Amino acid sequence: MDRIVECVPNFSEGRRAEIVDAIVNALRLPGVKVLDCEMDADHNRSVITLVGAPAPIEEAAFRGIATAARLIDLDTHRGQHPRIGATDVVPFVPVRGVTMEDCVAMARRVGERVARELDIPVYLYEHAATRPERRDLAYIRRGEYEALKQEIATNPDRAPDFGPKRIGKAGATVIGARQFLIAYNVNLATDDLQIAKEIARVIREKGGGLKSVKAKGFMLHEKKIAQVSMNLTDFTVTGVLTAFNAVKAEAAKRGVEVLESELIGLIPMDAVLQVAAQSLKLPGLSARQVVEMRILEE
Amino acid sequence: MDRIVECVPNFSEGRRAEIVDAIVNALRLPGVKVLDCEMDADHNRSVITLVGAPAPIEEAAFRGIATAARLIDLDTHRGQHPRIGATDVVPFVPVRGVTMEDCVAMARRVGERVARELDIPVYLYEHAATRPERRDLAYIRRGEYEALKQEIATNPDRAPDFGPKRIGKAGATVIGARQFLIAYNVNLATDDLQIAKEIARVIREKGGGLKSVKAKGFMLHEKKIAQVSMNLTDFTVTGVLTAFNAVKAEAAKRGVEVLESELIGLIPMDAVLQVAAQSLKLPGLSARQVVEMRILEE
Repeated sequence: MDRIVECVPNFSEGRRAEIVDAIVNALRLPGVKVLDCEMDADHNRSVITLVGAPAPIEEAAFRGIATAARLIDLDTHRGQHPRIGATDVVPFVPVRGVTMEDCVAMARRVGERVARELDIPVYLYEHAATRPERRDLAYIRRGEYEALKQEIATNPDRAPDFGPKRIGKAGATVIGARQFLIAYNVNLATDDLQIAKEIARVIREKGGGLKSVKAKGFMLHEKKIAQVSMNLTDFTVTGVLTAFNAVKAEAAKRGVEVLESELIGLIPMDAVLQVAAQSLKLPGLSARQVVEMRILEE
Repeated sequence: MDRIVECVPNFSEGRRAEIVDAIVNALRLPGVKVLDCEMDADHNRSVITLVGAPAPIEEAAFRGIATAARLIDLDTHRGQHPRIGATDVVPFVPVRGVTMEDCVAMARRVGERVARELDIPVYLYEHAATRPERRDLAYIRRGEYEALKQEIATNPDRAPDFGPKRIGKAGATVIGARQFLIAYNVNLATDDLQIAKEIARVIREKGGGLKSVKAKGFMLHEKKIAQVSMNLTDFTVTGVLTAFNAVKAEAAKRGVEVLESELIGLIPMDAVLQVAAQSLKLPGLSARQVVEMRILEE
């Protein structure tokens, strides 16, 4: 399999395992691998990670949305996490041999089909957005299901990209394409939370630091270690080694060393190769040189 | 496929493409991927790289040896490269989910079968060796086919591990298990060959430097760049980043910078992850966190 897409649909059910199981079963098609399913009871939400070739991933996403629409009722759903639909958000993420444009096309096809076959309003977001303000998921989701229900028919800003200007118990679904999100933390050899917070403020994009980097300072209370916790939202813009080196340099300025770093969840092969290529001054390093990747090509 | 073995059989034919093709065809079994085939006319030798699950790789190796025995006649073979057999040497190399002991067992099974079914003497080498001196391929191959033919019946040092104490036109075959060999070069920002040679002497194991590292200094005449060319014979002992940093440090002592490095041929995923883990102080990094590796697990 040399074309790989990740899809991370978020469903508004994090308490009843039988419903999440039914959705996961709908997602399991030949050519699709379900890598992870995280249920959160407080958020009353599940986040499922799928990878596979583009065509089966697209079909799986549709089937997951159809199943959630049948089983989840937004009129009775309560949870801490913002949401507008039974299937709340569905990002397609290029991993290998697939462009962002390919993922945008997937989002549009699935969105059109969800509207046509399931009569659910669909909003396109991030790289698939049709209006600049809709790149932002939070903007689309403002006021959540309850506000959208009131406004969708009359407010032109709320007009969906596909489907009806009315909303049923399945709510609306946001579908789009984005880069792979790498969750990456650097632990500092200090128990001074302020230092981690300062470093986070300096290195993140919002503070004029590294592009496509979000960062916060945290305290790991048990270990008494301050941590810079990052989301790298586009590793092709700012990679893991660049983020690590930036934290290390800022920590050094404050007389603090880096203890170690940690990766939460998954990382694409290309992001690992980027680290190796940079640290070895090895610009020619290619995935085709990695034995295991050659087997995947079959 | 979560169990992967590499096999790199060397055959004593590097001129007649039809014979090499016949051998490659014998190697192509379901579950085996032929990654590379290098024919060398001066050496009159071909080096073929296969990867796959242990069982099909073992079967492919046997079939390749059987085909070469039928098509290659050592009595008429001439070439620059030392050799004792039609199939000269067959190493099994652990790549993923397979131990060195597994590869030793493969070498022994194939060796026993080659002796029994093909009546060819077999010597076990490197990790599969049954005598310390036979860890060394050059020792087993001393005097080549011509000397072995004279001595095999009478010299107890020449007694094969499997098979007859006599030799036919297919010669004898050396089979064993070894670590993955990484061919890795570092280019220096100098045209002074002596500096590359000095660095090579200092960093290599033979000179008391890094364990499992062989190194030589070369001149890239077209680019006017001196190069430290290395073979890392066990990256679990000395990895790529350690080798790079050693060359960089020795170059710096001589006032020379590293231009860039290059990887010749293939590298196992674990060796790439090792570089990333070291440069990011990320000891927890695991192949299971790499998206593409999760797909391979199917």
